Amino acid sequence: MYKGLLKELKDLLKQLPGVGEKSAQRFVIYLIGHNKSLAQKIAKAISEAVQRYDKCTVCGMLTTETECEFCADSTRDRKTLCIVQNSSDVYLIEDTNAFKGRYFVTDKLLSPLEGIGPDDLKLDKLLELISKENVKEVILALNPSPEGETTITFLADLLKDYDLKITRLSTGIPFGSDIEYTSAMTLSNAVQRRFTI
Amino acid sequence: MYKGLLKELKDLLKQLPGVGEKSAQRFVIYLIGHNKSLAQKIAKAISEAVQRYDKCTVCGMLTTETECEFCADSTRDRKTLCIVQNSSDVYLIEDTNAFKGRYFVTDKLLSPLEGIGPDDLKLDKLLELISKENVKEVILALNPSPEGETTITFLADLLKDYDLKITRLSTGIPFGSDIEYTSAMTLSNAVQRRFTI
Repeated sequence: MYKGLLKELKDLLKQLPGVGEKSAQRFVIYLIGHNKSLAQKIAKAISEAVQRYDKCTVCGMLTTETECEFCADSTRDRKTLCIVQNSSDVYLIEDTNAFKGRYFVTDKLLSPLEGIGPDDLKLDKLLELISKENVKEVILALNPSPEGETTITFLADLLKDYDLKITRLSTGIPFGSDIEYTSAMTLSNAVQRRFTI
Repeated sequence: MYKGLLKELKDLLKQLPGVGEKSAQRFVIYLIGHNKSLAQKIAKAISEAVQRYDKCTVCGMLTTETECEFCADSTRDRKTLCIVQNSSDVYLIEDTNAFKGRYFVTDKLLSPLEGIGPDDLKLDKLLELISKENVKEVILALNPSPEGETTITFLADLLKDYDLKITRLSTGIPFGSDIEYTSAMTLSNAVQRRFTI
């Protein structure tokens, strides 16, 4: 029964990740019925961000400049390159303070079902960056999902002829979780990858 | 690590109902990093809807006109008035085809904790509508939540001196659900409200 502009807005909001019909309806009613001031601020912030942010010409990270803060920062370790899928992953890894190298954002993962192939991974830029900066280690910080694993295997194979250490994030039981609720696949992997203390 | 405009946008999106830190981050990265075209459409649709929609001067329903489609529709039963909290509830009830009367949208429910009292319920407009249209039945279609129950009790008491039938939505076990997973309160209420078949 949503009609006209409200239906249009609802259908647009439904395209956001993880948002279904009911959430989209709640957003519309909240924004237009209850909090027009928030609605106006969101519309303005989206418009401005769309206009001002673009991808770093070197690594693909979201930035308001030609080069992002990480590529422009000469104090960072240029020999270690961390490959991630999204700009948000960069923020998450930065928050850990466990990495001081540079990043490369692929934006996509290989997915034959969605028609995403090697041509979509910006490999030219990646290989150019590796050669130019004489990178010594590449960390494949991609999700351990089917698409992530496919992409990890593909990139490891592509980079094997370069003089590089190729690593990926450790897999295993997350801190604070319970063995009882760990999936068989994660547990089996954790047993195989057990380490000496 | 979200900074500047991206942080601002994330904090604004976090104010949407049911949206937490992680969802807001995903929305920002999806909109600005992956789908700027959707972002622009959403910003435009929000701006337009904010500008064009306002509350019906009679019932409080969202509308682009002075009077909403339900108040303006002379074929609807003017003697039966359904009181709901949100414009979205009107859409939901309309979808059932079970009601052909008119609506009144309170926008709020009584909540002493949030400082929402009787003055926030637009009672003048409600009483004016009831008198003017000579309403014979008021259906209190509010949530069976603590705030909803308080509001139902308050409105039933307020309206008891009018020549009116006052009803509320049936409470009980929802169709398709399982008695095993029904809360004790719902089940106890369903036993008390059992009906002859």
